[in-house]
Amino acid sequence: MLQSIDARSGQPAGAALPETTPEELDRTVRAAADAFASWQSSSGAARGALLDALADGLDSQRDALAAVADTETGLGLPRLAGEIGRTAAQLRHFAELCRQGAPYRTVESEAIAGAPPAGRPALRRVRLPLGPVAMFSASNFPFAFSVLGCDTTSALAAGCSVVVKAHPGHPQTSLRTMAVVQAVLDRLRLPAGLVGHVQGAGHELGVALIRHPLIAAGAFTGSTRGGAALQAAARQRPRPIPFYCELGAVNPVVALPAALEAGGAALAQGLAMFAGAGSCQYCTNPSLLVLQRDPVSDAFVGQLVAALRAQQPHAMVTPVIRRAFDAGVAAQLAAGARALLHEPTDAPAPRPFVAEVDAATFVARPALHEEVFGPSTLIVRVASVAETLQVLQAVGGSLTATIWGADEDTPDHRALVRGAMAIAGRVVFKGLPTGVAITAAQQHGGPWPSSTEPMTTSVGDAALDRFLRPVALQDLPDWLAARDGRPC
Amino acid sequence: MLQSIDARSGQPAGAALPETTPEELDRTVRAAADAFASWQSSSGAARGALLDALADGLDSQRDALAAVADTETGLGLPRLAGEIGRTAAQLRHFAELCRQGAPYRTVESEAIAGAPPAGRPALRRVRLPLGPVAMFSASNFPFAFSVLGCDTTSALAAGCSVVVKAHPGHPQTSLRTMAVVQAVLDRLRLPAGLVGHVQGAGHELGVALIRHPLIAAGAFTGSTRGGAALQAAARQRPRPIPFYCELGAVNPVVALPAALEAGGAALAQGLAMFAGAGSCQYCTNPSLLVLQRDPVSDAFVGQLVAALRAQQPHAMVTPVIRRAFDAGVAAQLAAGARALLHEPTDAPAPRPFVAEVDAATFVARPALHEEVFGPSTLIVRVASVAETLQVLQAVGGSLTATIWGADEDTPDHRALVRGAMAIAGRVVFKGLPTGVAITAAQQHGGPWPSSTEPMTTSVGDAALDRFLRPVALQDLPDWLAARDGRPC
Repeated sequence: MLQSIDARSGQPAGAALPETTPEELDRTVRAAADAFASWQSSSGAARGALLDALADGLDSQRDALAAVADTETGLGLPRLAGEIGRTAAQLRHFAELCRQGAPYRTVESEAIAGAPPAGRPALRRVRLPLGPVAMFSASNFPFAFSVLGCDTTSALAAGCSVVVKAHPGHPQTSLRTMAVVQAVLDRLRLPAGLVGHVQGAGHELGVALIRHPLIAAGAFTGSTRGGAALQAAARQRPRPIPFYCELGAVNPVVALPAALEAGGAALAQGLAMFAGAGSCQYCTNPSLLVLQRDPVSDAFVGQLVAALRAQQPHAMVTPVIRRAFDAGVAAQLAAGARALLHEPTDAPAPRPFVAEVDAATFVARPALHEEVFGPSTLIVRVASVAETLQVLQAVGGSLTATIWGADEDTPDHRALVRGAMAIAGRVVFKGLPTGVAITAAQQHGGPWPSSTEPMTTSVGDAALDRFLRPVALQDLPDWLAARDGRPC
Repeated sequence: MLQSIDARSGQPAGAALPETTPEELDRTVRAAADAFASWQSSSGAARGALLDALADGLDSQRDALAAVADTETGLGLPRLAGEIGRTAAQLRHFAELCRQGAPYRTVESEAIAGAPPAGRPALRRVRLPLGPVAMFSASNFPFAFSVLGCDTTSALAAGCSVVVKAHPGHPQTSLRTMAVVQAVLDRLRLPAGLVGHVQGAGHELGVALIRHPLIAAGAFTGSTRGGAALQAAARQRPRPIPFYCELGAVNPVVALPAALEAGGAALAQGLAMFAGAGSCQYCTNPSLLVLQRDPVSDAFVGQLVAALRAQQPHAMVTPVIRRAFDAGVAAQLAAGARALLHEPTDAPAPRPFVAEVDAATFVARPALHEEVFGPSTLIVRVASVAETLQVLQAVGGSLTATIWGADEDTPDHRALVRGAMAIAGRVVFKGLPTGVAITAAQQHGGPWPSSTEPMTTSVGDAALDRFLRPVALQDLPDWLAARDGRPC
């Protein structure tokens, strides 16, 4: 059985829920495959209508959905209402992309008479929806990266059906969202199997889902360990499939003295704010600060520690994640980080943790490169640009990297930009990396260990590309040419 | 030591060559990393100049290169001269793409004032060259998929450096091509390390190359077994990297009676021709024919067998591949295929092999789904469209699928097109799938087992995308904005 837990009290919330059985899983995937057979050739208008209706459905249930999610995650009503708004906006954005024809875009190469390599046949490059997508919800965004989050939205927009694996941290929220989905599908006379749902407490269900022969792709948002385990299962399939994991990230911030001198106090307040709002449970939470050894950087550390001490993080989204935070803090201390703010507690709400380490120790100790999910900040002190680059290189891969103070074109700044771009999917030059705009230029995904497919993004227009496989049609007959990029 | 073998005589050709030592491998990769540091920010003009000069270098050495390749592969001077022309044309095509700015293309999302999700920061999506690419040459195309083939060409165009792993089947051809490369690099005052070269007879060298910490991506063309082994090694890296394998394919042809009635004799001649020219050693060789049970299909089988009997394949490119052909033929017979043309020989040149099997047997026996590389044709007889779709589904993934005779818009034809698109990277409606045009609409790569990354192509403009990782730059400073999409 699957038990919803009140994040603040740690007590059961409501009755236990049945776990999806292997037979139910099989039935759900088969229904998704049946729904795919017609959805794959749906028009942009039809897809837009579905996504808009889902957005309207979320909006109409906003208060009820936020309330149940607040009980299960402790994230707070204002944040959750905002997240529902973001999720609805994302659905509407992809509805518009569908109406504009994004999934049907073709590339044409007209025939050229003559022998190759000068001559060639007529070729049209279209994109084919992959098939039923297994979507693994995240714990920390019960809406934006869950049932109707970016993976489901972009998969539906691409013409795929979806089987949602609910996150066991918010099963009631998932069921409530699924009720919205099923009402919309029913009203639009679309098959219920277009968006299926499975739930369970253990790992076996997720493994069974990603290994189901009719599943054509997978998308996961969560921890590096969880994603890697599912990826291994996916690879053991007789026929491997694309599997996109957006994983953990330390999101380093390189703060140059000039920027700290100009606005250190505000930046410290900005960083500290995430501890109070969301308990830093963001995939783009900046948990690693790279600072020089100078008076202005020292002053900034003092400001940051003071600002964090004044914050009270709230309960974390699940007890498992709460325990992992304590374990992560202990691992950083054991690896040689020196605590600057450390107030251990057994409460569901952790206290902010800040530690400091020199660059050489950081680079040498892989335990310090691991993300500590929650209100944790590791400050690495560097003596040079070269040391900063070594620190970034040791991080390896991150969703974001931030550089404050690279406003002029200097060799040092170029080197830092190169170093940041080499490890990150997004490089931020002002403010903070949290908040991931849903737009054409977005890239949410970086080198390992922040994602398994760093050439793709899970947020923004290009998220669509993950579920559309290019196919070249050579000397296609007229009837097929008349369909433009829409599958037949 | 590595010994070049005369493909026709099976005897050593020239003196044995030293194998690359682990120290030399490390030095070569380090030189590639050093060269990458500057090449990644090179201009389109500079990349275009290099690729054009390499094309000119190939053209100027065409006869000498074709002669040495002919000894090592037995592919014949006309075919090899043509292949060099294709390889040079590909270099020039990517030179033009560089001058047009393809690697530097950006996506812009301007800032919108206000709080998210309505508001957003300014974002520019650029693409960053990955770094030194390990390139594994193929046996069957000693130029077009070897030292200066599509992988090297698109990697250099993307701003990456390359370390070529020469195919042990044509080491002298690789060295001669490398001499062209080094002369060009020297003349253009580019670092010699921009295109490195390693050679060896065993698998260890390739594994060591793909596992080298400074290698940022890999590209491989060859057998499913060889690619899978290297992929496994790549995945064991502490930091996984993108690795693109273009593998084997059976390239099914669905020949409907209408097309055979109209032009069966010519199509049989066309198919048979590949046995004589190239001994069917093409990745897009159509080795599986799906035919109905009717008089016109029977007549076509007779025409095809007669046309193939009249062909004399030449020696295969390596003794290993020659032995694998016999083993593949034996496996098909053991799995229940009935021989229609089978003239076993111990000579370096095989005889064409044709066998027939019913759809149910084909679907049930995975041994029949394996590619038999060389002049082998398996005919599957089907009784319905449904059986045809089962046969395609059993194939699983292929570089190409061909449908002859789907000229009208009927439910059956739609079903066949859907079935073909579901398993192939390219669907051909007229003529044969061999010959892969180098153009914007091309897609060379299909679902497993035909490639490991079916969302990418190894031929055509989009081959570039494999080596350019998207990075979003948020609120970037003016000096960086002024560089457009060119790395700093």
